[in-house]
Amino acid sequence: MVKTYKIKVQTKGDCQVVDLTGDVRSALSDSGVKDGAAVLFNVGSTAGITTIEYEPGLADYDMAAVFEKIAPANGYYEHEKTWHDDNGHAHVRAGLLGPSLSVPITDGELTLGTWQQVVLIDFDTRARTRTVVCQIIS
Amino acid sequence: MVKTYKIKVQTKGDCQVVDLTGDVRSALSDSGVKDGAAVLFNVGSTAGITTIEYEPGLADYDMAAVFEKIAPANGYYEHEKTWHDDNGHAHVRAGLLGPSLSVPITDGELTLGTWQQVVLIDFDTRARTRTVVCQIIS
Amino acid sequence: MVKTYKIKVQTKGDCQVVDLTGDVRSALSDSGVKDGAAVLFNVGSTAGITTIEYEPGLADYDMAAVFEKIAPANGYYEHEKTWHDDNGHAHVRAGLLGPSLSVPITDGELTLGTWQQVVLIDFDTRARTRTVVCQIIS
Repeated sequence: MVKTYKIKVQTKGDCQVVDLTGDVRSALSDSGVKDGAAVLFNVGSTAGITTIEYEPGLADYDMAAVFEKIAPANGYYEHEKTWHDDNGHAHVRAGLLGPSLSVPITDGELTLGTWQQVVLIDFDTRARTRTVVCQIIS
Repeated sequence: MVKTYKIKVQTKGDCQVVDLTGDVRSALSDSGVKDGAAVLFNVGSTAGITTIEYEPGLADYDMAAVFEKIAPANGYYEHEKTWHDDNGHAHVRAGLLGPSLSVPITDGELTLGTWQQVVLIDFDTRARTRTVVCQIIS
Repeated sequence: MVKTYKIKVQTKGDCQVVDLTGDVRSALSDSGVKDGAAVLFNVGSTAGITTIEYEPGLADYDMAAVFEKIAPANGYYEHEKTWHDDNGHAHVRAGLLGPSLSVPITDGELTLGTWQQVVLIDFDTRARTRTVVCQIIS
């Protein structure tokens, strides 16, 4: 059985980290599934999905700092030549992080740790409305 | 229901980015599945899978540049001492990117964004024939 | 059909790479599944899962070296200010690597390459007992 939910998220871009855990739990609750997996997927090529402990230090500073080190916003990107835009670093970061995540479900709960939240990181250079597909497979 | 396809890809290695989207769509079409997920997995430890906007700037330059920065081809790797070879950077990069990706399927379509393609990145130092397992779960 | 196994792993932390392949194969064997997927998920926010060739050069040196470069253990992390602890780098590294991995199963076997093992990398600063959820979906 497969149930598909679409989670809409308003972001500010610029490496904003958004906690999706509540939305995923709502979808899971609606599905009524007890054992299975939640497959999450960000639609688009300038944001990614992972898990972190969602607290301000990591969410608002540390994750942005590591991505700025790996692929600086003001670095040189051929992508920007192709489109005459400014978000080459956002594409590179999103490709590295990846758009998908699968979380097992047991006894009707996500198997997350106590200090582990599902997050979207939006690397784009402007506010976006993101669609995250949340698929409950059982 | 599980249907398994094997996608064969000829690569040149050296961070070549290969667009797999057409192959995955062909498998999906053959499967006849309307709702489910495509689980993609690269067999082998010197290539990885993600999504990017597949355009020449990113595919032929920017992704290679970031991986060269993270794990330079001419860096020191203990792995090369073990096997007396030259692809330590390829192993490190592939481990970091990861070999697997799951893409939801709704209404018989992958839920990719307009500018989002499924890609293999081959980090090895020579031409390879890659096998990507594409599993359609419904 | 979904069968869920919990793999317990004793680690030393500090970027230790642990080969989980035998544990995943045992779960698969117990499940009796011939075609499906193994969804692996690390519970907790300071370790991640990927595949590498599990040999001492990569496992004991090269992977640690790349993560030390990306997010140094002695770097500045706001996370450490939040909790007055010392593992900010572990959180950042785990978020970047990601907690989940899906491996297809065909003919009762994981579709791993000959030199490709499923590994946990524990980035924390102390010994931990890790729980990896291994879900066999068919």
